[in-house]
Amino acid sequence: MEEVASIKPSAARERFRAGLKTPTTGWCKGFTQANLLIVPQALAYDVLLFAQRNPGPCPVLEVTEAGSATPSLLAPQTDLRTDLPAYRVYENGELVAETQQIADLWRDDLVAFLTGCSLTFEWALLAAGIAVRHIEQGVNVPMFKTTIPCRPAGSLSGPMVVTMRPIPARLISRAVQVTTRFPLSHGAPIQIGNPRAIGINDIGAPDFGDPVMINSDEVPVFWACGVTFQTVLMASRPRFAITHSPGHTFISDIEDAALAAF
Amino acid sequence: MEEVASIKPSAARERFRAGLKTPTTGWCKGFTQANLLIVPQALAYDVLLFAQRNPGPCPVLEVTEAGSATPSLLAPQTDLRTDLPAYRVYENGELVAETQQIADLWRDDLVAFLTGCSLTFEWALLAAGIAVRHIEQGVNVPMFKTTIPCRPAGSLSGPMVVTMRPIPARLISRAVQVTTRFPLSHGAPIQIGNPRAIGINDIGAPDFGDPVMINSDEVPVFWACGVTFQTVLMASRPRFAITHSPGHTFISDIEDAALAAF
Repeated sequence: MEEVASIKPSAARERFRAGLKTPTTGWCKGFTQANLLIVPQALAYDVLLFAQRNPGPCPVLEVTEAGSATPSLLAPQTDLRTDLPAYRVYENGELVAETQQIADLWRDDLVAFLTGCSLTFEWALLAAGIAVRHIEQGVNVPMFKTTIPCRPAGSLSGPMVVTMRPIPARLISRAVQVTTRFPLSHGAPIQIGNPRAIGINDIGAPDFGDPVMINSDEVPVFWACGVTFQTVLMASRPRFAITHSPGHTFISDIEDAALAAF
Repeated sequence: MEEVASIKPSAARERFRAGLKTPTTGWCKGFTQANLLIVPQALAYDVLLFAQRNPGPCPVLEVTEAGSATPSLLAPQTDLRTDLPAYRVYENGELVAETQQIADLWRDDLVAFLTGCSLTFEWALLAAGIAVRHIEQGVNVPMFKTTIPCRPAGSLSGPMVVTMRPIPARLISRAVQVTTRFPLSHGAPIQIGNPRAIGINDIGAPDFGDPVMINSDEVPVFWACGVTFQTVLMASRPRFAITHSPGHTFISDIEDAALAAF
């Protein structure tokens, strides 16, 4: 099997542009992957304000100028309309298409938001000797809707979605320290050890992703999740929006280490 | 002399509302003070995007809803039109008035931005045993225009303004650590020890504020400065804008410690 972890971001994006459709998990180790959210300029202020008010679930890495598909900070030689492996197109908040390029849908009033994702801090957890259960089990991370309200902005409001990773009690402090370094990748846990207090009544039945095993020496630890942003946006039924297809994220030229807060 | 450091924020704001005009330095120790920038909604997206792209000089604490003068996060019982000791009104980027309330100028399309200021981290430096020279000398902090370009956003662009504090060589690491904890108060230094490299040719002649003594065992340390935001905005000649009067900032109900990143 080819070692996709060692491919350079530019080479990976070239393959996606040429038609390769694959989840990006495990690709281009050490380089930051980002979630993509594209909305018309008329909605961009609400989206940006929502992110400012909810930096945990919505850590903005870059916002393009209206009409520009070039993320000049994250990867200046890139075209966001073609360089992700798959996209989803929404009308009135409903999924209407999944596609491998969006050049034919592009408009002069579109603004692209790129936000940090948890892959960055999962590498950091692993490097610190903290196993990540869903990676061990080869499944998707368990995600839960909570009763924690996001701070609303304009037309956007709704509850926070969180990810859960079981962490051995003796390693929780270390997990907090490691993820605190990456605020642009959701940062430190938002809650530790009490699922019911945030409206999670069955830790074995996530709302998105897959259930994972929690061992007897482990505590469920919850981080803010980027799915919050997309869920809240679609609940407002925007006339038009485009996102990356789940798991098929944008691979930037920025190394994870460069995004550490310290 | 009355001990203004021990007054509670709500009591301080009540006095300002009743007509007291005074700089807020030293007031309400431990509570976060914020810079105020008010612009019409039509400009708010550029302002927010500029802040997102330049979080060092422009750390946004809160953005009000258009037409609302209530900062619901920082101080929900407050009216931003009356509760600061002094305001400045700008038309086409030119100062046209200094006033103690702006209720008569308020419009339904105005948006207020409150941004963190360096007072927060100066308390933290002092608490860590690091003296702050301009406080010792009883003068304003020295500020310099640099050759460091901010990342532009829409109509807004320009160079970063920085503050300078001389720090003994053996305490620089500690000063970096202490201010790293406060990213919403400009965070860690943006440069240490080489003024010429950022376009400062005479460290004794600041562009704003006052010069301070640099002792032989000290190194000039530079932090991003909130004056950047106002300078860049006014250079774009907005038709209408309001700011706090220099030194007459907004005193919030939030304690500095609550804004620490860790």
